[in-house]
Amino acid sequence: MPSKVDLEVRRRGIKLFQEKFGRLVKRILECKPPTLVIPKRTLTNTIYDERRRLLLLGPEKLRRSFLDVNEAKKFAQTTLMAAIIYEALINNEYPTIRDLYYRGKHTIRYRDIHGKIREENTWDEQRESDAVIRDIEVYLGILREELLILSKEKGKVVGNMRIRSGGDIIDLSKMGHGAYAIEPTPDLIEFIDVDAEFVLVVEKDAVFQQLHRYGFWKKYKSILITSAGQPDRATRRFVRRLSEELKLPVYILTDADPYGWYIYSVFKIGSIALSYESERLATPDAKFIGVSMTDIFGDKNKKPWLSPQEAKNYIIKAKDADIKRAKELLSYIWFQSKAWEKEIKIFLNKKAKLEIEALASKGLRFLADTYIPQKIETGDWIL
Amino acid sequence: MPSKVDLEVRRRGIKLFQEKFGRLVKRILECKPPTLVIPKRTLTNTIYDERRRLLLLGPEKLRRSFLDVNEAKKFAQTTLMAAIIYEALINNEYPTIRDLYYRGKHTIRYRDIHGKIREENTWDEQRESDAVIRDIEVYLGILREELLILSKEKGKVVGNMRIRSGGDIIDLSKMGHGAYAIEPTPDLIEFIDVDAEFVLVVEKDAVFQQLHRYGFWKKYKSILITSAGQPDRATRRFVRRLSEELKLPVYILTDADPYGWYIYSVFKIGSIALSYESERLATPDAKFIGVSMTDIFGDKNKKPWLSPQEAKNYIIKAKDADIKRAKELLSYIWFQSKAWEKEIKIFLNKKAKLEIEALASKGLRFLADTYIPQKIETGDWIL
Repeated sequence: MPSKVDLEVRRRGIKLFQEKFGRLVKRILECKPPTLVIPKRTLTNTIYDERRRLLLLGPEKLRRSFLDVNEAKKFAQTTLMAAIIYEALINNEYPTIRDLYYRGKHTIRYRDIHGKIREENTWDEQRESDAVIRDIEVYLGILREELLILSKEKGKVVGNMRIRSGGDIIDLSKMGHGAYAIEPTPDLIEFIDVDAEFVLVVEKDAVFQQLHRYGFWKKYKSILITSAGQPDRATRRFVRRLSEELKLPVYILTDADPYGWYIYSVFKIGSIALSYESERLATPDAKFIGVSMTDIFGDKNKKPWLSPQEAKNYIIKAKDADIKRAKELLSYIWFQSKAWEKEIKIFLNKKAKLEIEALASKGLRFLADTYIPQKIETGDWIL
Repeated sequence: MPSKVDLEVRRRGIKLFQEKFGRLVKRILECKPPTLVIPKRTLTNTIYDERRRLLLLGPEKLRRSFLDVNEAKKFAQTTLMAAIIYEALINNEYPTIRDLYYRGKHTIRYRDIHGKIREENTWDEQRESDAVIRDIEVYLGILREELLILSKEKGKVVGNMRIRSGGDIIDLSKMGHGAYAIEPTPDLIEFIDVDAEFVLVVEKDAVFQQLHRYGFWKKYKSILITSAGQPDRATRRFVRRLSEELKLPVYILTDADPYGWYIYSVFKIGSIALSYESERLATPDAKFIGVSMTDIFGDKNKKPWLSPQEAKNYIIKAKDADIKRAKELLSYIWFQSKAWEKEIKIFLNKKAKLEIEALASKGLRFLADTYIPQKIETGDWIL
């Protein structure tokens, strides 16, 4: 029943576990104290690599020793989780991080040094089991998706492209009015052929539906993707592969607000909390195509895309939370370029934001046939 | 560029507008005061039809007269929105409710009876424009999707079934590890052929991913769907069509909590706020397959599916909001059956809830090969 691709992935995963955790077993058999050495996933060990334009983990490592009373619980959690994931690999299971949490959740009864019976839970919150899964990812140097740990997925794609997934050949140009929902393990997708010149990633599913229905990707030979809000890991990995393997330029279209900029930066740089994934998930070449503040207000070299009347009707007043978020973004190195500082300063000055839908309301034709193609053609994007 | 199906739908929509709003124009040309007569979308005019097991709009109508100063604004909003939707139909546009809001948003300047210049916005909030769109839906007796008003979509489907959408034939059994993302206008889908015995709707996308990957729908000849949480209109309409046109039994699998029950009831009965849609979107024959409270705790005829140890690890304490929600559900007629009252009473008594993932954590095989098939086979569901 399971696809050949999945069986092969299981074999690789199992081998990796045997190698990396086998060392631990060997140490125990040699009566040496078992210790795990794992790259540190802390903010101070998160480095922005300016050359590669990626958030990466630095060189710091943590040692987790079973025989250290401060670390014994974390050590036990890590090996418990490793055992659960390993068993799932062996048993042809497809766990989610939620059910890994349940699988490991139990109470350990033990007698303390005074002979008193005590109880301790393996973990109480999913936060704890998730953290351990991340430790295992960095310890093994692998994404959890490659251990066939699944999750919910929001990303969708259509375009002139054929892929192979789980033994099926899927023509992404033959999805009718619907779309292809990206699988949770996008590394297992094989790109068969592609006839597209660029990738357009749209933050909003509804705008994706509009552009798709309008035939945007056919007319402008492109791959159209939506992350449906904050992108999940699979969508990020899929976009990264299109950029890296097919050398397609990637343009990202979001609302003109700090939330939209953040979505762009997650695609491009990675997220601070999960910097260890960036090396695989981020797309450093991604370009922010809009909606930009200068699109709304213009500048000395550029006329605004909105008439004063439209601006009046469409612009939304920024909330305090938006302002706060924008100031935060200014503190990130990757937003400290001239273009981004200008963008954010206009925002802080005007205290105004705009949704993509406002452009669609000028006419879908305006968005699809004027705004997007002209922005691409004239190179009017932010890196 | 637009598909033939869409062009045909446009023609129908345009004709309907001309008929229904043409009357208004005629009255104006005859110098009669223009008035709209629209079914009332109020709670008091929402009726639970016990025979059809549906929430429906009752017989009450509202009259909206342009020449009544209390109604002039609402009347103007309604005709403004009708004009915008009509234009979008004519111009091959695919608006969303968000951009319809933007399209109509503007300020009207007028001189009052004292000669003073005043300003009035057509609408300030999307709430207002959405309400008007709903009025137009009930006035025309059509769903907004059939006027090619698009929206974001979360629903996904895989299974032994081929459909036609927008000129493409799509084989829902050839989606690889991904899935087919249901289009925003599911009435335009044509069912070509189907080789399935039932429909399983799973609340959670992650569990859908697991069952899909496990090959559940192949093994148990079924159509597998996820609503990814609270179902959107397209997913509801798609499920309804599978039930009505293909006569497939529909089983709904949610978390064992008031939120899950509510999701079930939205599929089955419709939502109170949008009862006018139920006639098209609800699936009165849908069955709640679980997770039920008696699955967790058992009853006199039934052993619980969880061991005491598992129950201890998996059960989550209900929050105050859950308790409040459960009591609310008890006040709805369609939850006042013996089976549902028992279900809700166990919940209120035990103050305990459970996620589907907890069953998956007993092993995906348990969920896919034991729990779901046995529940179906023994008819252990709630209507």
